[in-house]
Amino acid sequence: MAYHLLQRDPGGADRLAAAIGHARSAIGHCRLCNTFTEQESCSLCASTERDRSLLAVVETPADLLRIEQTQTYRGLYFVLLGKLSPLDGVGPRQLALEPLSQRVADGEVREVILATGFSVEGEATAQYLAAWFAERDIRVTRIARGLPVGGELEFVDSGTLAQALMDRREVG
Amino acid sequence: MAYHLLQRDPGGADRLAAAIGHARSAIGHCRLCNTFTEQESCSLCASTERDRSLLAVVETPADLLRIEQTQTYRGLYFVLLGKLSPLDGVGPRQLALEPLSQRVADGEVREVILATGFSVEGEATAQYLAAWFAERDIRVTRIARGLPVGGELEFVDSGTLAQALMDRREVG
Repeated sequence: MAYHLLQRDPGGADRLAAAIGHARSAIGHCRLCNTFTEQESCSLCASTERDRSLLAVVETPADLLRIEQTQTYRGLYFVLLGKLSPLDGVGPRQLALEPLSQRVADGEVREVILATGFSVEGEATAQYLAAWFAERDIRVTRIARGLPVGGELEFVDSGTLAQALMDRREVG
Repeated sequence: MAYHLLQRDPGGADRLAAAIGHARSAIGHCRLCNTFTEQESCSLCASTERDRSLLAVVETPADLLRIEQTQTYRGLYFVLLGKLSPLDGVGPRQLALEPLSQRVADGEVREVILATGFSVEGEATAQYLAAWFAERDIRVTRIARGLPVGGELEFVDSGTLAQALMDRREVG
């Protein structure tokens, strides 16, 4: 791409440089959910249509979009922009815990949904946050682990099947 | 395989025929869990090591083995040998509901775990059984639906992610 721009499209290179420079200077963090936005708060946080008592904590803006695509979640989000990963030098101090603490202290949030992934780092982050919220008087939940929709027992890995059995739910 | 046996290994054909004939006559159903066995009750049901208060209802003997491989489940099983599938002519009458009813009536079983898959038929079977057990005084649970172990939000289908959010669990 770099060769193409330099050889065939120098005007395009200028426009790309300007666009990236503009993004760098104009895009900041939403003061509520910490995602990327050009406004002070993002369109989701500014919306009056959302359930402000629910706050899903996710790792990245991509995860936020992924949940939005399900069209089933009506609450708000908080984007950590990372996950605990000591080997990569990411400890609790590198995560956006201070903004999260302020976000939850508004009195409107009744439930924090830990929606980080089930990788080792995602799980560690969820467990750290669960312990961190335990001192606060707020309901904390974790998205479910188990078989995928349409999944058969035969084709699921042993770890997931063991978790699905352990996390079984009351019915009826 | 048929051509090989007839052309090259007629003795093998005789032994295979005898083995299949023996299986057909010697292998029956375990009187407790309905799986295939040569004894009156299978080795699992006869074991004194298992927790007799837990009964996992599965579709096939293969599913039973799959759960055994996780090495985390200490209860017993009931094998339906099928699942509700009206298009294939399998309705409630074709499933082993009568043996299941007798199995649960022994007074030892305290919890029935509906461990059918999450295919359309597996879900229908679980919902039918949940309604069927609702009239009986017994705890009924369903294995969990959600993200796989190690799974990231980005790589999970929308239906599963929606379920993982809906089935979220209390933590802390």
